[in-house]
Amino acid sequence: MADPIVLLLSGPNLDLLGERQPEVYGTATLADHVATATAEAARHGLAVEHLQSNHEGDLVEAIHAARGRCAAIVVNAGALTHYGWSLHDALAAYEGPVVELHLSHPGGREPWRHTSVLAPVASGTVAGFGGDGYRLALDAVAHLLGREETP
Amino acid sequence: MADPIVLLLSGPNLDLLGERQPEVYGTATLADHVATATAEAARHGLAVEHLQSNHEGDLVEAIHAARGRCAAIVVNAGALTHYGWSLHDALAAYEGPVVELHLSHPGGREPWRHTSVLAPVASGTVAGFGGDGYRLALDAVAHLLGREETP
Amino acid sequence: MADPIVLLLSGPNLDLLGERQPEVYGTATLADHVATATAEAARHGLAVEHLQSNHEGDLVEAIHAARGRCAAIVVNAGALTHYGWSLHDALAAYEGPVVELHLSHPGGREPWRHTSVLAPVASGTVAGFGGDGYRLALDAVAHLLGREETP
Amino acid sequence: MADPIVLLLSGPNLDLLGERQPEVYGTATLADHVATATAEAARHGLAVEHLQSNHEGDLVEAIHAARGRCAAIVVNAGALTHYGWSLHDALAAYEGPVVELHLSHPGGREPWRHTSVLAPVASGTVAGFGGDGYRLALDAVAHLLGREETP
Amino acid sequence: MADPIVLLLSGPNLDLLGERQPEVYGTATLADHVATATAEAARHGLAVEHLQSNHEGDLVEAIHAARGRCAAIVVNAGALTHYGWSLHDALAAYEGPVVELHLSHPGGREPWRHTSVLAPVASGTVAGFGGDGYRLALDAVAHLLGREETP
Amino acid sequence: MADPIVLLLSGPNLDLLGERQPEVYGTATLADHVATATAEAARHGLAVEHLQSNHEGDLVEAIHAARGRCAAIVVNAGALTHYGWSLHDALAAYEGPVVELHLSHPGGREPWRHTSVLAPVASGTVAGFGGDGYRLALDAVAHLLGREETP
Amino acid sequence: MADPIVLLLSGPNLDLLGERQPEVYGTATLADHVATATAEAARHGLAVEHLQSNHEGDLVEAIHAARGRCAAIVVNAGALTHYGWSLHDALAAYEGPVVELHLSHPGGREPWRHTSVLAPVASGTVAGFGGDGYRLALDAVAHLLGREETP
Amino acid sequence: MADPIVLLLSGPNLDLLGERQPEVYGTATLADHVATATAEAARHGLAVEHLQSNHEGDLVEAIHAARGRCAAIVVNAGALTHYGWSLHDALAAYEGPVVELHLSHPGGREPWRHTSVLAPVASGTVAGFGGDGYRLALDAVAHLLGREETP
Amino acid sequence: MADPIVLLLSGPNLDLLGERQPEVYGTATLADHVATATAEAARHGLAVEHLQSNHEGDLVEAIHAARGRCAAIVVNAGALTHYGWSLHDALAAYEGPVVELHLSHPGGREPWRHTSVLAPVASGTVAGFGGDGYRLALDAVAHLLGREETP
Amino acid sequence: MADPIVLLLSGPNLDLLGERQPEVYGTATLADHVATATAEAARHGLAVEHLQSNHEGDLVEAIHAARGRCAAIVVNAGALTHYGWSLHDALAAYEGPVVELHLSHPGGREPWRHTSVLAPVASGTVAGFGGDGYRLALDAVAHLLGREETP
Amino acid sequence: MADPIVLLLSGPNLDLLGERQPEVYGTATLADHVATATAEAARHGLAVEHLQSNHEGDLVEAIHAARGRCAAIVVNAGALTHYGWSLHDALAAYEGPVVELHLSHPGGREPWRHTSVLAPVASGTVAGFGGDGYRLALDAVAHLLGREETP
Amino acid sequence: MADPIVLLLSGPNLDLLGERQPEVYGTATLADHVATATAEAARHGLAVEHLQSNHEGDLVEAIHAARGRCAAIVVNAGALTHYGWSLHDALAAYEGPVVELHLSHPGGREPWRHTSVLAPVASGTVAGFGGDGYRLALDAVAHLLGREETP
Repeated sequence: MADPIVLLLSGPNLDLLGERQPEVYGTATLADHVATATAEAARHGLAVEHLQSNHEGDLVEAIHAARGRCAAIVVNAGALTHYGWSLHDALAAYEGPVVELHLSHPGGREPWRHTSVLAPVASGTVAGFGGDGYRLALDAVAHLLGREETP
Repeated sequence: MADPIVLLLSGPNLDLLGERQPEVYGTATLADHVATATAEAARHGLAVEHLQSNHEGDLVEAIHAARGRCAAIVVNAGALTHYGWSLHDALAAYEGPVVELHLSHPGGREPWRHTSVLAPVASGTVAGFGGDGYRLALDAVAHLLGREETP
Repeated sequence: MADPIVLLLSGPNLDLLGERQPEVYGTATLADHVATATAEAARHGLAVEHLQSNHEGDLVEAIHAARGRCAAIVVNAGALTHYGWSLHDALAAYEGPVVELHLSHPGGREPWRHTSVLAPVASGTVAGFGGDGYRLALDAVAHLLGREETP
Repeated sequence: MADPIVLLLSGPNLDLLGERQPEVYGTATLADHVATATAEAARHGLAVEHLQSNHEGDLVEAIHAARGRCAAIVVNAGALTHYGWSLHDALAAYEGPVVELHLSHPGGREPWRHTSVLAPVASGTVAGFGGDGYRLALDAVAHLLGREETP
Repeated sequence: MADPIVLLLSGPNLDLLGERQPEVYGTATLADHVATATAEAARHGLAVEHLQSNHEGDLVEAIHAARGRCAAIVVNAGALTHYGWSLHDALAAYEGPVVELHLSHPGGREPWRHTSVLAPVASGTVAGFGGDGYRLALDAVAHLLGREETP
Repeated sequence: MADPIVLLLSGPNLDLLGERQPEVYGTATLADHVATATAEAARHGLAVEHLQSNHEGDLVEAIHAARGRCAAIVVNAGALTHYGWSLHDALAAYEGPVVELHLSHPGGREPWRHTSVLAPVASGTVAGFGGDGYRLALDAVAHLLGREETP
Repeated sequence: MADPIVLLLSGPNLDLLGERQPEVYGTATLADHVATATAEAARHGLAVEHLQSNHEGDLVEAIHAARGRCAAIVVNAGALTHYGWSLHDALAAYEGPVVELHLSHPGGREPWRHTSVLAPVASGTVAGFGGDGYRLALDAVAHLLGREETP
Repeated sequence: MADPIVLLLSGPNLDLLGERQPEVYGTATLADHVATATAEAARHGLAVEHLQSNHEGDLVEAIHAARGRCAAIVVNAGALTHYGWSLHDALAAYEGPVVELHLSHPGGREPWRHTSVLAPVASGTVAGFGGDGYRLALDAVAHLLGREETP
Repeated sequence: MADPIVLLLSGPNLDLLGERQPEVYGTATLADHVATATAEAARHGLAVEHLQSNHEGDLVEAIHAARGRCAAIVVNAGALTHYGWSLHDALAAYEGPVVELHLSHPGGREPWRHTSVLAPVASGTVAGFGGDGYRLALDAVAHLLGREETP
Repeated sequence: MADPIVLLLSGPNLDLLGERQPEVYGTATLADHVATATAEAARHGLAVEHLQSNHEGDLVEAIHAARGRCAAIVVNAGALTHYGWSLHDALAAYEGPVVELHLSHPGGREPWRHTSVLAPVASGTVAGFGGDGYRLALDAVAHLLGREETP
Repeated sequence: MADPIVLLLSGPNLDLLGERQPEVYGTATLADHVATATAEAARHGLAVEHLQSNHEGDLVEAIHAARGRCAAIVVNAGALTHYGWSLHDALAAYEGPVVELHLSHPGGREPWRHTSVLAPVASGTVAGFGGDGYRLALDAVAHLLGREETP
Repeated sequence: MADPIVLLLSGPNLDLLGERQPEVYGTATLADHVATATAEAARHGLAVEHLQSNHEGDLVEAIHAARGRCAAIVVNAGALTHYGWSLHDALAAYEGPVVELHLSHPGGREPWRHTSVLAPVASGTVAGFGGDGYRLALDAVAHLLGREETP
């Protein structure tokens, strides 16, 4: 039987990772982060499916497609974290656990980054640990799903 | 001569109707609602053209394309109701009547749903009647257009 | 057996309809609107009982008297929509469906008209359709009550 | 031919004048103030019709009845100045000049008295002159109506 | 000599007590509460005079009539607690002690119930004790008036 | 003995009266208004001293110079009404009556004109009567000073 | 069997009672108030355990220790009423009735005293009755606990 | 060697230029404006690359593609100016000069247009000059890039 | 015939240009900027008249004097941009085009610099281009006035 | 050489874990959570030192004592997260990494829990994962400290 | 006779002075500052009693103990300056002069440091002078107490 | 060599000192305060140059003239403290230390006096010590300039 799937969503501008403001976001690329997440997921017998999009609509549709098919969602929504109410509504309609992920710590940056419109529909948040957050978020998801580590 | 067209627009997440939060939005699907609207329109000699999209840009473009071609617009913009200023600007540039439609009653839900950025450019609003709102909105549009019922 | 009654309530200044700011509210009188509502109700086997008052207390008491006697309430509360918390409390104590009705579209007028204190206790809203709103509101109520049209 | 009528309206608690907080409102009674207004009006060939009510609805109805019959309105709405939106709507529907009158100076008292919901529909304001304000307001009205003093 | 009188005022919707939202307000009727208050008053040699009205103006006038005649006022103003500035002004003009009474605890309900416009003119508040609050408020008033219990 | 002096102060842009936005401020010039005020003052045995300045500092200094020398101040501070806290402090240090005067009705214009920083230090306000306000303000001042009309 | 215990908590600065601002708080000492509470409790077969502390942490811990041991809590939290969210959380974890008590009436004092962070977790409030509030609060608690007076 | 490229971005609804609200935006089409910009750019030895999109994601991606390839960006983001935080983040990651361009003057229109979320990442702004703004913005960019006019 | 005049106004602290915070405002002096503006104006057959003042009143008066005499105004009001409502009123009374000019980009600096009280009365804005803004603003004005470049 | 120490701080009311609101906080005790953290730390060659206090001052002092002695701090500050500015200042003076930990997800609870005053001084946040958050936080800290897992 | 005592209070985190953020607070230790204060006090025949605590309750109690015993209080409350309402109440109950002292200038730092809850009960403030502020504050106190310098 | 100069600036209404509201500002005149400052300065080998003006522009220009000539500025800006952003900008361009001085304690007066727009550019503040503040401020400045007392 196939491994349960965790949908990893990356919002606007995350395709620039490694290039954009490395003093804030680090030097690893998004591919590096997806690899980190995939490796951590594999330790728990989970598969990762990844989508990056700069279009809120694409993210909404990926969440719709995950209903009844993916075991959990990890979402780093970029700036949409702060005004993407459509994304909020899509996640509200998703039945599994949702983890909000941020590379930097929004609470310590500009005021408009202090409020997350996704928070009311997220099970949990991992923020501020840079690329290691991908590992932590997948680890967290695995525990939410009750997965033991695969020996 | 072809029947005048009413453009029916459905915003983000409305493709999930019937599945998502049935306690809020009911069990009918979007296709059911479009059928309701189409039937009501037909009673008044009007045709319905429907577009659902999770992309604000698609809705904006459908409104552009309706200029000089469609007799009215009925729009259930989902969460974009509350932050879709581009949608607002597109509707402001449309010359015919615009009816804002909601299945639930936003005024009785979370605070961020209490303000509609579309209100300043809408002729009228129908909210809180679930699927029956589609019938009511088309009926309202027909009267705005001065249509008698087709015997 | 007598037809079920829908209580139609008109708040302050609505007795002036047809005279006051016709560019906003139209030229029909309140009697015209009550007649529209009554005709629409009759189509569904419903009776309309109407009260206009410029006193919030009168409206509160009419709602009390409707408990256990009227099947639904349609209320155009005028300016009380925006500060009539006693009216809110009276409607909260009413067990049937409540429809909020406005001739104009409050969301497109002065800021103080954007917030309805009645919204949390209304089943639905019909706004911005002028006198046709009376027909639509009664039609909506009939469907909320599960009434077929009387042949 | 009868003298044109100025409707003088007194809102809640003004019946207590002369008794209530004399350090704020002075020792003259409302009857004294009406007499002052009537005398000043007479100097300009105007009659005064006075109504005091503690019910917003009564004031609304008096304004309705003044339409087409009274030449102007002078209103000291008491606390309704600050939340009486129904009163605002009634005055908005009145075609003649409206003068807002206050014995004390609301701008120098508690913050909730700093905003007048009647201001957008008043031609002018006279505030802070105690009982002499009645004379001034009627004098102002006479000039708005283009009345010379009666020799 | 007649017993001193305590004026007990009940605002809008309190006539519904026992019927309206029993999970919030309990099952006792207003008559029950008045009886409770009267009995407690009698223990202190005080009489209770009661008025319930859904009209702010009636309450204002009852307060005027209590000046120089009633020894104290206990007021449960219902929703007027939160916007009844005319009531505030009437109480400000009353010379005796004023006790604000609530069956439920407004501070734990909707945000608009958190602020009392009557607080600046009340001697004290009793809130959240359901019907027992009537007994407590009268007891409190008796002590404010320096009444010993009647043996 | 010389007539008591009323200092009439005109703030920024009032030198443009008669030219600037006549639909708001009328066609009379400032000289016309000063003449109106002077004539009214003369009726009460009062003299008018006038200063117009576009500099807040000049107005402050004129108020200082009026201490112990002028019987009252009438001030139309123009836009300084809304941010001239130095003017406020100067008036607070003046011992006689102060009347705030406006040609138009600030409460019915842009939001920033709704708040007067001078209100806490003004005895009274006359607003919205156009040029006739100058006559009314001087009349009001005369009564505040206890002046009978000069026969 | 020992009498049920009511925990009476006094927050910061209440140890100064009788000395601090007697025009606000009266001349009785805290010991006097505890005696009042104890006597009233005894009338209902209840014991009072009292703790005054100027440390929020002490109050939190006393509430923890009361879980499963005390029948009710009466708390006059002083200034912590307005920012003591830890106290709020401790009371939220307490299973019995909680009565908020104030000597003065916070609603009539400085704005920062108008909001109680404890209100959402209090059953009821007694405020503004000075020392007599202790008697009333205990009396209220006794009734909440269903205690008859001990003959 | 090819001329350096200036990326000209046009946001939602700008494809309607010439048709939509000509009293606000003028009668020239977007093609006209692009031609204006291109001509001005050519005077400075610069090429213009233009993209109009109603999708925020498209604009974000065009900015990504401009990194290291285009010498500057001129952006008229339409309504996204006021809520397009993803656009903000994309521009923050662009290394060259960014000029914000508006046909009308947002500061003189509705309040929600007064704040630009792009301002913190823009080098400069040109607003309110209608179609001539395209010429001015390109001229400004040329100077920011140190370009002399081509003889 | 003399060249049409453009009034160039410089507000408080602009006399320090070249000395004050060169990292924000650059090293050119105000005289340099005036020379830039004058040269650009000359290219279009326009003359520049310049006034710098640290007194709001002086700027107000210069605007008054420009009425009917100068063809346009370019104003860099310095900090008065954010609280100079008298300046606003003066510009509102000026009949020609008004261009708001800033060396730096206020939208990217401290919050109090984000709002311009002059925006409602400005035709357009040029901000953030340093000294080159003077050339751009004059160029913009020339086009608003319909001036071709002088060969 | 001794293992580096991670200071684990638990704020007010966390001593109740396992008892208080298990639907929000779960059934594990604080000792359970400390054991989880200690075990995870041991996997990375780290020791855990734990302090729970209901006194903000104790937490402040523990942070002082950790300077130069502990390698990192993990803090679950309970309600102090939202008003403990002294705690903020203490953490600001600590030189190592700080991780903010919450069992529940504050962003999805009452509004006052949406803002963390500790966020500006935290390296990262782990929230919403219940007791598993302790494991995740220690794991995160280990990686921040560059610790490999101990084989 | 013993010298009058000035109570010098130091709030949370001030024990770190000399170590914490020296770029903000300087390199002197708290002991250095106390020595400065003591020396200055001695010049005026005053003694200094010093308490540093990280517990608001300790500071409250020290203020209680100072009543009738200490001639004045100088308080540097650290972060409690901004939320320590219990401290405010304690100082309000103290009869002598109170001086608020800050090493740095709170008005130029983060927004939450701009408001002091102690200001309403402080006689004066000395802020921004680093360690020299201790000397200045004691000097100020000496003058408030009418002390000449001791020769 | 001449003594270094400290520029002492006094804003609007300070010329009234000794006359205006002595209960707030004391009975000493401004000349008295300048004498105090001068004497204290002399003790440190400093000269005082004083300017009082009711015009913000004059104060701005005096600051400009102090650049490179005066060693420090002490400014009591009166009401300009709260809205004088031009003054703020002038002080921001001054290179030496700036001390903000107030006779009374603004934090304990009306809300609009609680915020100083000068705070971000002041080194320190001395407030609430009446005339003695002049001595303290000069003493503070001397220490900021590293001046020993002149023997």
